Amino acid sequence: MNIIPGGVCAAKGFTAAGIHCGIRKNHTKRDLALIVSAQPAHAAAVYTTNLVKGAPLDVTKAHIADGTAQAVICNSGNANTCNADGIQVAEQTAALVGAALGINANDLVVASTGVIGQPLDITPIQQGIPVLVEALSEGGSAQAAEAIMTTDTVKKEIAVEFTVGGKTCTLGGIAKGSGMIHPNLATMLVFLTTDAAISADMLRKALSTDVQSTFNMVSIDGDTSTNDMVTILANGMAENPEIVSEGADFDAFMAALNTVTVHLCRCIAADGEGATKLLECAVTGAKDEANAKTIAKSVVCSSLLKAAMFGADANWGRVLCAIGYSGADVDVHQVGVSFRSKAGQITVCEKGAGIPFSEETAKTVLSEDAIDILVTLGDGEASATAWGCDLTYDYVKINGDYRT
Amino acid sequence: MNIIPGGVCAAKGFTAAGIHCGIRKNHTKRDLALIVSAQPAHAAAVYTTNLVKGAPLDVTKAHIADGTAQAVICNSGNANTCNADGIQVAEQTAALVGAALGINANDLVVASTGVIGQPLDITPIQQGIPVLVEALSEGGSAQAAEAIMTTDTVKKEIAVEFTVGGKTCTLGGIAKGSGMIHPNLATMLVFLTTDAAISADMLRKALSTDVQSTFNMVSIDGDTSTNDMVTILANGMAENPEIVSEGADFDAFMAALNTVTVHLCRCIAADGEGATKLLECAVTGAKDEANAKTIAKSVVCSSLLKAAMFGADANWGRVLCAIGYSGADVDVHQVGVSFRSKAGQITVCEKGAGIPFSEETAKTVLSEDAIDILVTLGDGEASATAWGCDLTYDYVKINGDYRT
Repeated sequence: MNIIPGGVCAAKGFTAAGIHCGIRKNHTKRDLALIVSAQPAHAAAVYTTNLVKGAPLDVTKAHIADGTAQAVICNSGNANTCNADGIQVAEQTAALVGAALGINANDLVVASTGVIGQPLDITPIQQGIPVLVEALSEGGSAQAAEAIMTTDTVKKEIAVEFTVGGKTCTLGGIAKGSGMIHPNLATMLVFLTTDAAISADMLRKALSTDVQSTFNMVSIDGDTSTNDMVTILANGMAENPEIVSEGADFDAFMAALNTVTVHLCRCIAADGEGATKLLECAVTGAKDEANAKTIAKSVVCSSLLKAAMFGADANWGRVLCAIGYSGADVDVHQVGVSFRSKAGQITVCEKGAGIPFSEETAKTVLSEDAIDILVTLGDGEASATAWGCDLTYDYVKINGDYRT
Repeated sequence: MNIIPGGVCAAKGFTAAGIHCGIRKNHTKRDLALIVSAQPAHAAAVYTTNLVKGAPLDVTKAHIADGTAQAVICNSGNANTCNADGIQVAEQTAALVGAALGINANDLVVASTGVIGQPLDITPIQQGIPVLVEALSEGGSAQAAEAIMTTDTVKKEIAVEFTVGGKTCTLGGIAKGSGMIHPNLATMLVFLTTDAAISADMLRKALSTDVQSTFNMVSIDGDTSTNDMVTILANGMAENPEIVSEGADFDAFMAALNTVTVHLCRCIAADGEGATKLLECAVTGAKDEANAKTIAKSVVCSSLLKAAMFGADANWGRVLCAIGYSGADVDVHQVGVSFRSKAGQITVCEKGAGIPFSEETAKTVLSEDAIDILVTLGDGEASATAWGCDLTYDYVKINGDYRT
């Protein structure tokens, strides 16, 4: 498997664009993204479990109920959530894009991200769509990735090449974070494209399986968004024999998908609001996978641990504390904790109790911008990984006055 | 019912003291507290549900299994948690205090608060106990309240007078916050004393009932501590007919207890680490009490909402978001949200959607140091209240380098 450039346009038959249409006041920020497949594609999605849902999610859900979609339209700057006319605006957006592209409005995935509870004016979108369609190109992934950003500081994209049935297939994606992110069966905004031929059923299975150990294991701030969605379009243009069941081809597809999604998870966590450090908690020796996941998530979600990591403070008691209140079935007297980064690795706790360690070495290890928190348990053989970030002054600053 | 001074010493027969014995490096900070009843008292307690537990909790649990205690010894500066010799040190502390007071070591409540995972040296405690016992007085509540503080900025104490069976009874308490606080069947450190005569069974019932709607509804940072504990001693010296069953006397006792505990909840939340504002979320119109509590807690726990309140930003979308992911059974299309403070009240959301409001008025309302978030639902008649605080730069600062 090779990592290649091109993001959502790496796969055959996909074009994309991102423009500033005027939803956001800042003219230098793109706010409308479009991704189009040259032919109808199989489609699958997972959605936030928040009961307060963005109107676009209901529209998208209805549109891809038949397992087919051909394009994705997404705006930033406004979540189109908690608005009386939300569904209407989302449907109207789909109709406008469908007409401009000459495709069925029901084959549109619609997404929005931004402030909740402010009416979304259709005018800038209506005026922007012709410009956006005109801008579509095979080199448009980066612009689309920019146009879906909110408080993200960097765009997030990746693509990989892999082989199915002797044919080279490609799978790529773009994502946006970076606040209101917490695992709860669905996640942030992620758009994936592939030219692999795969049935709608197997595509759904692949996505819903993969997110359990990827996007559902990312937390920035414990707040499950109202607008989270991950979608994937598979247009079959790689001309491989269609994947219709489990087996080697499906495994190759899953491996490619997982490479892309893990990369995007790490990007989202590292660019969490205000973050200076990516945290990766790897739990091993758990009783079963469910317990391993619960513990890994609890550690990366702890405000106290997140603040300690910001301060490069090897306060492992907070790791133990987060394990203890996680609700997992765990023997706390067998817990070991190490911190690891580019600068080295240091063990600070064994069998549930502190061991002597060099504070100086710990400080060096924890001063890097990507920290692994390694938790070893004595309960079994299961493992899990979760991603998060540190809690910083800038998180408070960004969220203390987000709307203005 | 009258609120009176005196804290844990307000009730007849109770004395207290707080000194600096040397566990904390800063000589100006008291770090050892003692509360003593002139005669053995009925005792009850609730404890953290964290699997990682401070050694003092196990010792206290064993000591009051018989429903009796006579004194409370508590140190700050070290949690005596995750230490191989933790139980031994806690038992030794009880034995030393018991000997100095001439009471049974098994009648000691032992508590510790501070850093996790650093051995607790018995030497300063051993040297401090004679000084502490010497300092015991009926005016010692404030010193004891100071000695249990960690990152708290103000001491927390209150007492009330009430009548049972024609006799004037008194109930008072002290508490410490102020980080690693999250409701999970038990809470922060709270020591309550009363001279009311009440059976051990009814005392247990009173405490475990009350905490469900008081200390379990406070969250500072979502981290359930390893050392949380609430204890109450009732020495019967008010000479009222002993409360042995439900009825008017028990109701009077419950009312007094609730006045004290709600006051301490508000003190703890207002003095949360780094906090500039007390948040009180009152939910009405819920399907049942469990749903009302779930929603109220979810709102005060949301990092995004807490940061918005710090910025006096009326970002009600975050209230809706927190309701939506709370897991409660709720009709999100019926939700109303108002903000209230000394400066006024403003409604910002009705029937799950935004309504026009004056940003200027909202800013004025939210610039006060105590904010009520009023959530009205259309699901039934149940209500609940939760307490929390805003998320600030100082929370990050305090926790970025707690150990040094």
